[in-house]
Parts: sequence; C-alpha cells; structure tokens
Amino acid sequence: MTAQRRVQILEVSPRDGLQAEERTLSTEAKLELIARLADAGHTAIEATSFVSPSAVPQLADAAELLGRLERKPGVRYPVLVPNERGLERAIAAGANDVAVFVSASESYSKKNLNRGRAEALEGALAVVGRATSAGLRVRGITSMVVADPWDGPTDPKTVVDVGLRFLDAGCDDLSLGDTVGYGTPADVRRLLEAHAAAGIGMERIGLHLHDTYGQGLAGVLAGIEMGIANVDASIGGIGGSPFAKHASGNLATEDVVWMLDGMGIATGLDVRKLAATTKWMAGQLGRELPGRAARALNG
Amino acid sequence: MTAQRRVQILEVSPRDGLQAEERTLSTEAKLELIARLADAGHTAIEATSFVSPSAVPQLADAAELLGRLERKPGVRYPVLVPNERGLERAIAAGANDVAVFVSASESYSKKNLNRGRAEALEGALAVVGRATSAGLRVRGITSMVVADPWDGPTDPKTVVDVGLRFLDAGCDDLSLGDTVGYGTPADVRRLLEAHAAAGIGMERIGLHLHDTYGQGLAGVLAGIEMGIANVDASIGGIGGSPFAKHASGNLATEDVVWMLDGMGIATGLDVRKLAATTKWMAGQLGRELPGRAARALNG
Repeated sequence: MTAQRRVQILEVSPRDGLQAEERTLSTEAKLELIARLADAGHTAIEATSFVSPSAVPQLADAAELLGRLERKPGVRYPVLVPNERGLERAIAAGANDVAVFVSASESYSKKNLNRGRAEALEGALAVVGRATSAGLRVRGITSMVVADPWDGPTDPKTVVDVGLRFLDAGCDDLSLGDTVGYGTPADVRRLLEAHAAAGIGMERIGLHLHDTYGQGLAGVLAGIEMGIANVDASIGGIGGSPFAKHASGNLATEDVVWMLDGMGIATGLDVRKLAATTKWMAGQLGRELPGRAARALNG
Repeated sequence: MTAQRRVQILEVSPRDGLQAEERTLSTEAKLELIARLADAGHTAIEATSFVSPSAVPQLADAAELLGRLERKPGVRYPVLVPNERGLERAIAAGANDVAVFVSASESYSKKNLNRGRAEALEGALAVVGRATSAGLRVRGITSMVVADPWDGPTDPKTVVDVGLRFLDAGCDDLSLGDTVGYGTPADVRRLLEAHAAAGIGMERIGLHLHDTYGQGLAGVLAGIEMGIANVDASIGGIGGSPFAKHASGNLATEDVVWMLDGMGIATGLDVRKLAATTKWMAGQLGRELPGRAARALNG
C-alpha cells in the first residue's frame, strides 16, 4: 500500500484576502479568523503583511496582530514583507517566516512596487538575504506569471529566471502567482515544464491561481498532475490585489478541498469547518463571498 | 502537422438555463438569445423543452418558439422531450433533433419524473424508439450520474447500463449529467473509464457538469484528457434544475471556451460575443449571472 498523496494548502485569506476588502476587520476578528482556520486543519496561514499602512490600511495592525497571535504548534504563520524596512518591522513583531514578492512583468512592477522589474528583484533579493541570515524561512513570490493586463503574455523563461535568483538567494520555496487569472491549464503546464527544465523541482513550487476567468481549479488540477504539492487558496474566494483592477477573486479554499477530497488527496482540512468560517467571514465583511462549495455547503 | 483538436459545446441556456429562472422571457427574447448564440459560433443549441407547461411555465411557448425559429444552416437545435406526448408535440412543431432523459438515481427520478428509475427508463426507451423511427436525431440524457442528494453516490455501473440501453434503442449519443455538481475530476474519470470498459466510445459521450461546488471546469479538463469531445455549457452559468434544490449553476460557456482557447482546442466560438450575450441576458433576467469569464470580459 502506498502512502496517500498529500497537498499542502497555504491559506491566504488573512493577508491576500483581507487586503482587498473595503471593510477593515478589527484585530480581534482577524485573530478569530486565523484561529478558526487553524482549527479547520490549516497548517500554513499567511497571517498579515508588513507593507506600508498607508498603502494597505486594512493590514495596518500587522505588528499588533503578530504580537497577539497565539501560535498553534505545527502551524506556520508566514507574513508578507515588501522591503527591508518591512522585514525589520516583521522581525521586531516576532515573525519567523516571511514571503518576499516581485512581479514578472514590468508594468505591474511599476504600478505595485513603484520600481521596474529588475530593480525590484535586486531589492527583493537583498531582503531574502537578510531574512535567511536572520534564520527566517523565506518564500519567494512572483506575480503576473502568465500575463500582465498591460504588457500581455509573460515569458515563462522570465519567471524561471526570477525563481532561480530567489532560490540562489536562499528562498525555501517559490510561489507562482497568476495575479489576473488569465491562465489556463496549458499555461500552468508550460510554466511548470519550464521550471522542471531549469532543474527546479515541483516540490519547491506553490501555485497561486485566481478565479477571475473561472480557471483556478482546472489549473490546480493540471499542476497536481505534474507533481505540485503546494497550492494557495483563500476561504470563500475572498481577496485579490487592490492594485490590479482585473484581479478579482482568489481561488476558494473549499473548492480546492472539495476536489482534493474527491480525488483521495489528503489536505488535513475539514471542508465543513472551512465553509462555516466562510459563512462567519461573509457576515464580518458584509457581503456574499464568491466561493462555490462554501455556498453549496452552507446553502 | 496534425489537425487541431476540436470540442463541440452544446449550449443549453435556452432550455436548461431558462427553465430554472424566476423571470420568464418572451418568445421574442428567447429567439434573440438563440440567434445571438448562433452568431457567436454555436452549432448545437438546446432550444426548448416540450415538458408540461404547468411543470415548467418558463418554456410553455415551446411549439411557438420552434415554429418561429429561423434555423441557421449547420446549426442543430435539439429540444427536450419528457415522454411520448412531448415527442408528438415536438414533432408537430417541427423538431428533428430531440433529447430524452432519465435519472440514474431512484429519488430524483421519483421527484422529477414521478416514476421510479426502472419504469422511467422503459418509458424513455419507448420514446427513443418512436423518435428514431420518425428519423429524428436522439440524445439520451442521464442525470445524477455521480450522486443524488437523497440517495448518495451513484454506482457508475448503473449509469453505464442506462447508456447501453439508450444506445441499443437507437440514441445517437449520450449526455452524462452531474446534476448536483458533486463530482470531482476523479468521479469523471471513474465514470468514463466504466463507459470505456463497456465498449462505449468517448466520442458518443457528452459531459454535463454543474458548478455548484466549483468543480465543473476541472471535470471538463479531466474528461478532455480522456478523449471527450462534447461538453454542455450555458452562457453566464445560468440554469440548473428547478426540481433539485442544490443544483444551482450550470457550467458557464465562457469559462469553458476561455480554457479551450488557451489550450489550443477549437470550439468555433467567439468568447467575446458570448460574453456580450451574457451581459444582455443578465439584463433580460434582471440579475447578475455567476459565470466568471463573462464578468471579467465585461468588467
């Protein structure tokens, strides 16, 4: 008997989800969200972001939240850091697990990071270096890996080059973000094949797909068929980038878990507990959430 | 150079879509919908249903609609017929292409057809016999092929047995309906493998998946990987069964076409024209429609 296949889901709702919401949750509500997610079985929860509070006021309480967070044993709580200053703030607040991000495309880099792609990458690599020196776990996130709404299709080679630099600098793993959700399973395959050809193992790659065009879950299926074991998702499908107009809707965690449950792939997650948390979250945010399985389970 | 792979999409919005809507469209609006669909490249459009007008008042104008329909050359306009009386009405109205349906599960058969599964199948086979004798093209639809909300999982063997009976009776092809959208890619594979093992070729099978749990497109991907070349979809994701509470949301045509376009698989459809029709349809129905790609394209 072979061991059951396992996929690790990184729950991004507390950060990538909440950063794009009109309504800002209280620190208490965020802590409750994170506790509920851990209770549903999550072992990797992107807790918050140390970006500038003026850019993302929804997450201005990052330091307070991290300070008050009751860490459940066996659960990782990565936080996003945009630059060295953000890294310092994160470390001061007790972070031991961070994510650094760049854009694979020029236009989004300028809009989101106020710097061109090459310059932003050098800055990010410096942050990776400092974080790994400080003993932190580091993930390297690349966004717009399939296309950019202004620049058009992204060359997979560009994404691979960024990934190699991230790994060389000491990143533990990579996240490939199709920020605008243009990608189909063919794009996912092409991208992963390019990484494999460059010697980057599938076990070091996480897929971060959006459901803007309804393609998220099909892309995850394609990735899993190629050996991917790390997937980003957000309960109820909340979130997206406040800087990319077309980036509505992360892939809903419950939709992913429903699929993986049905395929006999273990996630350690309880889809009904997740759906209950989505229902609670919809109440907190004052809007209906787009994820399908949660609606069906709560309906 | 090999020929480009092709997938035929059967557009079900005029029938399966509209039958579940609160608002009943005028015959004119339905004819405009069908004309728009053909203009976007559809070559198979489920036009209406000859079920009892008291059961589905939204489609009470079936005979008038079919009589007034301007048939575009190269386009099929199948209609649903529930029984011999419906078949007679359809033939009298000019139908030359019909679909006959049964449920693979007992409870849904009783709720939807007021008859047990076995009895309903015998009735359906008699309709298939009369329709083929009259020279009509006939599709055999089986619903609840993955699970039934009251009975639980459906045995793939049951679905295959129904399919074999349908084909023996003269059906040209089969439609496998996961009416409640429970199915994951693993279910699709299991079901198709069971059909292949029974000697039913993939070219005779159409997949009719629902997006209730967000699984529709991933299931289509799994089916296409196994050789399926016929997929049912509904613009904007409108529709579902008015008799099955949990059956919200057909798979949106634009989401399927976006995926197939990206995978280099031909459908003959113009996704932007489809999205424009979805926008118009949302206005006609007075509600926002759930399909993702149309929202993104219209947004």
